[in-house]
Amino acid sequence: MTDRTIQIYDTTLRDGSQGEGVSFSLQDKLNIARRLAEIGIDFIEGGYPLSNEKDVAFFQQIRKDNLGDTKVCAFGMTRRRSMKAADDPGMKALVAAETPCITLVGKTWDYHATDVLNVTLDENLAMIGESAEFLGRGAEVIYDAEHFFDGYNANPKYAIETLRAAAAAGAKYMVLCDTNGGTLPEQVAEITRAAIEGTKDYGVQIGIHTHNDGELAVANSLAAVDAGATQVQGTINGIGERCGNADLISVMANLALKKKGYRVLGGRDMKHLTELSRYVYETANLQWRGGQPFVGQSAFAHKGGMHVHAINKASKTYEHIDPALVGNERRILVSELSGRSNIVAVATEHNIQNDRVLMDKILAEVVRLENKGYQFENAGASFDLLIKKVSDTFTPHFTPIKYRVVAGDRDSVEGSVFAEAIIKLKVGDELWFDAAEGHGPVNALDAGLRKALSGAFPCLHDMRLIDYKVRVVDSGAGTAASIRVNIESGDENETWGTIGVSDNIIAASWQALTDAVEYKLHKT
Amino acid sequence: MTDRTIQIYDTTLRDGSQGEGVSFSLQDKLNIARRLAEIGIDFIEGGYPLSNEKDVAFFQQIRKDNLGDTKVCAFGMTRRRSMKAADDPGMKALVAAETPCITLVGKTWDYHATDVLNVTLDENLAMIGESAEFLGRGAEVIYDAEHFFDGYNANPKYAIETLRAAAAAGAKYMVLCDTNGGTLPEQVAEITRAAIEGTKDYGVQIGIHTHNDGELAVANSLAAVDAGATQVQGTINGIGERCGNADLISVMANLALKKKGYRVLGGRDMKHLTELSRYVYETANLQWRGGQPFVGQSAFAHKGGMHVHAINKASKTYEHIDPALVGNERRILVSELSGRSNIVAVATEHNIQNDRVLMDKILAEVVRLENKGYQFENAGASFDLLIKKVSDTFTPHFTPIKYRVVAGDRDSVEGSVFAEAIIKLKVGDELWFDAAEGHGPVNALDAGLRKALSGAFPCLHDMRLIDYKVRVVDSGAGTAASIRVNIESGDENETWGTIGVSDNIIAASWQALTDAVEYKLHKT
Repeated sequence: MTDRTIQIYDTTLRDGSQGEGVSFSLQDKLNIARRLAEIGIDFIEGGYPLSNEKDVAFFQQIRKDNLGDTKVCAFGMTRRRSMKAADDPGMKALVAAETPCITLVGKTWDYHATDVLNVTLDENLAMIGESAEFLGRGAEVIYDAEHFFDGYNANPKYAIETLRAAAAAGAKYMVLCDTNGGTLPEQVAEITRAAIEGTKDYGVQIGIHTHNDGELAVANSLAAVDAGATQVQGTINGIGERCGNADLISVMANLALKKKGYRVLGGRDMKHLTELSRYVYETANLQWRGGQPFVGQSAFAHKGGMHVHAINKASKTYEHIDPALVGNERRILVSELSGRSNIVAVATEHNIQNDRVLMDKILAEVVRLENKGYQFENAGASFDLLIKKVSDTFTPHFTPIKYRVVAGDRDSVEGSVFAEAIIKLKVGDELWFDAAEGHGPVNALDAGLRKALSGAFPCLHDMRLIDYKVRVVDSGAGTAASIRVNIESGDENETWGTIGVSDNIIAASWQALTDAVEYKLHKT
Repeated sequence: MTDRTIQIYDTTLRDGSQGEGVSFSLQDKLNIARRLAEIGIDFIEGGYPLSNEKDVAFFQQIRKDNLGDTKVCAFGMTRRRSMKAADDPGMKALVAAETPCITLVGKTWDYHATDVLNVTLDENLAMIGESAEFLGRGAEVIYDAEHFFDGYNANPKYAIETLRAAAAAGAKYMVLCDTNGGTLPEQVAEITRAAIEGTKDYGVQIGIHTHNDGELAVANSLAAVDAGATQVQGTINGIGERCGNADLISVMANLALKKKGYRVLGGRDMKHLTELSRYVYETANLQWRGGQPFVGQSAFAHKGGMHVHAINKASKTYEHIDPALVGNERRILVSELSGRSNIVAVATEHNIQNDRVLMDKILAEVVRLENKGYQFENAGASFDLLIKKVSDTFTPHFTPIKYRVVAGDRDSVEGSVFAEAIIKLKVGDELWFDAAEGHGPVNALDAGLRKALSGAFPCLHDMRLIDYKVRVVDSGAGTAASIRVNIESGDENETWGTIGVSDNIIAASWQALTDAVEYKLHKT
């Protein structure tokens, strides 16, 4: 038996943009749409043309692209009550978008029609049918059945009738939406089968659109596919309102790599998923989710020493798939729980292979530092410098001589908090001395360090601080505890992490800052 | 038919601590264990006593608590090969933990035994059986079958034999672990049924332990329960290695509120889940996950205008459960209006019941501060002072006039890091001026404040700082980001939390320190 084709329908640009903190510019939308088409997504829902000018412009521009087999869809609701479809502003906006495909959303739940829309059940059916018929004259129509599962539970006969109204009017796909996101997989399976049975005389296809409110969006999508659905709607990284939509990354990876009998993206491989995931996060200006299945930075990260030992012997005992299949990679975390094998694995990436004596020295130094509260899992650049230092291949670009911060408030003046830093350092034989103000002592220190070095190293201009994290290592000791500072820096090519530990937060920050700059200068 | 009881087994303190960036102090572990016991979690896995001193100390201390029906478990592996159980250091460490329950992990997968452990299949069975028998003399034994699903797929007969070896030796629970996290729900269901069938003559119970590598951990846990499992292992917020463990928050909420026929936490309600989730994030110093199902800040947040309108008409059309059932609340994103019901609840604890005007003033002040990055979950003492201030019943015991810290290192002297603080304040009309040194600027500030106040308030002698936490609130802004400082203080009677927020860590610490001292003086 040949594999069943499952169409992937992306709504990152429409439903995804409902997510808290998500907002795409026109250019962002065009860029994402082109990426999605490149990897072979079947449908891209571009927006809601009635709602705003940006979406109208998106459809005008994307029309000029050649997106191969990918179809762009405009999204909108059924016509208003007591109005002809041809006169409805929403219908007109959909037609004006000139997309090959239109996604029409309608009401399934009797209660919703009568109590929220204030229309009769028959009028609702007419709104669905007439809208689908009107839009179908110039485009393929996908019918999104809002609240299908809640509607089916309330009134199964009517819920099926709404699908039949769309199907009779020529819509090709009936998409069952779990709008509230609270349906369980066994209910999704059962109701999907009922929807297929109820519409089989029209020869339509069934799709599924889930939300993650019960932490079951992916499972629900897979349950619907197993029950016979042939289209899955979702968003990249699962971004979307409340708890988000089904993450298409996980859906595609599960269908293509784990389940049997399905074909997605025309049989293409899944190697671009990690890159795609990160591209969408970056474009949406959202933090990556480290623990995201398949594509997260931690998805194939290993910490426990016992595990790492086993992984080196046989990766399949601790990895459910080869990370390369989704474009991700294994990471060995250097950590307090790790044994020798972790450090060897990391050092190997740094081209120190079989030097047993050097390896022992590195190991001893890591253990010594870990006992003081260091952790190198997010501080690869500091670890890199450590290896250079231990192996006597480290030549510093500058030598700090003194740093000092002063912070406090001015006598009896409200809101007079200040912070200043003084830096003295040498580059070669040349002495540099500078001072800077900042929002706080660490910000002042950072500004002072760059100021003092800017004359000797103009390349530091394109380096920036991305993230700054503070953690009390032994929190039981109150303000005398050790403090660990992690700094993430970046330039246009890469990002790198550094660390500092001290019972003095200023000293810890100073270490992490100077490591960050040294790493940048070493790689330049 | 009565509801089937599903036991909840929490491994936040052991498997959760394998998560990237997660590290608990001894005090953190004790605090979390007590919270878990309060809400009625059946089992708490406290740690791996062979691995480190901190876990040994945890078991020594938690033993003195009365945790009600909650059982604490120590975790460890089967005895080593070619060694008697009684002689094995791991076995001895488990017994020495003196817990009512011991969780023993053993190998299921034939390949893992022969190729990673280098033991024969029979020797592996003997290791399981002898270990379970030895540990069962003094404690209830839970047997965690590592890699059960992969092992079953490779060699079903042998996988079942490993369970039977544990059951024959007296273990009461067989927990099927999806160690790699890659198993699909339909496979979990089928293999769980096979495990029940294969062990039914021993009358043991079956548990499930899943990981989220396929984004299916919760679905897999529920699938196992539907197939007959009666125990679910997981972590609060799903923290854990790689993509994390099954999130017990979602598992409990689904079992108690959505699925039919199950009883969890002895039938208690789920109103504490949101509070518990946030408490664990705060203690682990991790960012909350806004979109987390059930308990995230966005889980019941509504953005789209249409939706908000519909929600106001009929909340069930856009909310899968009443957010109050899990202690969460609806948020309408147009206005950042947070937490009225929470604030009312907390204010009520502070004896402000029905003063509507005062309540509105408090609410407005909290919203204003939350927008600046404050959070009062762990800062009850600061909240107490806030209520006093807003209701004009606050009389300060002292008035800060100036504080200043200087920190840095001395010219070219290795290890010369220093920190000094200068404090000027008034008690009544009397001016006090003092200075102190410290391990870091905050420690110096703390020492200086106590020194300056010690003449006027000798009672401060029995007050001490217990914990100090620093968190970057808007971490995307680098070192210019807002910094939130939480301080926990104590005397012989109680402990209390205070908070400060500023873009200057010194100013934020100063707020939290002065609040801590004021609270102490107010209650004395």
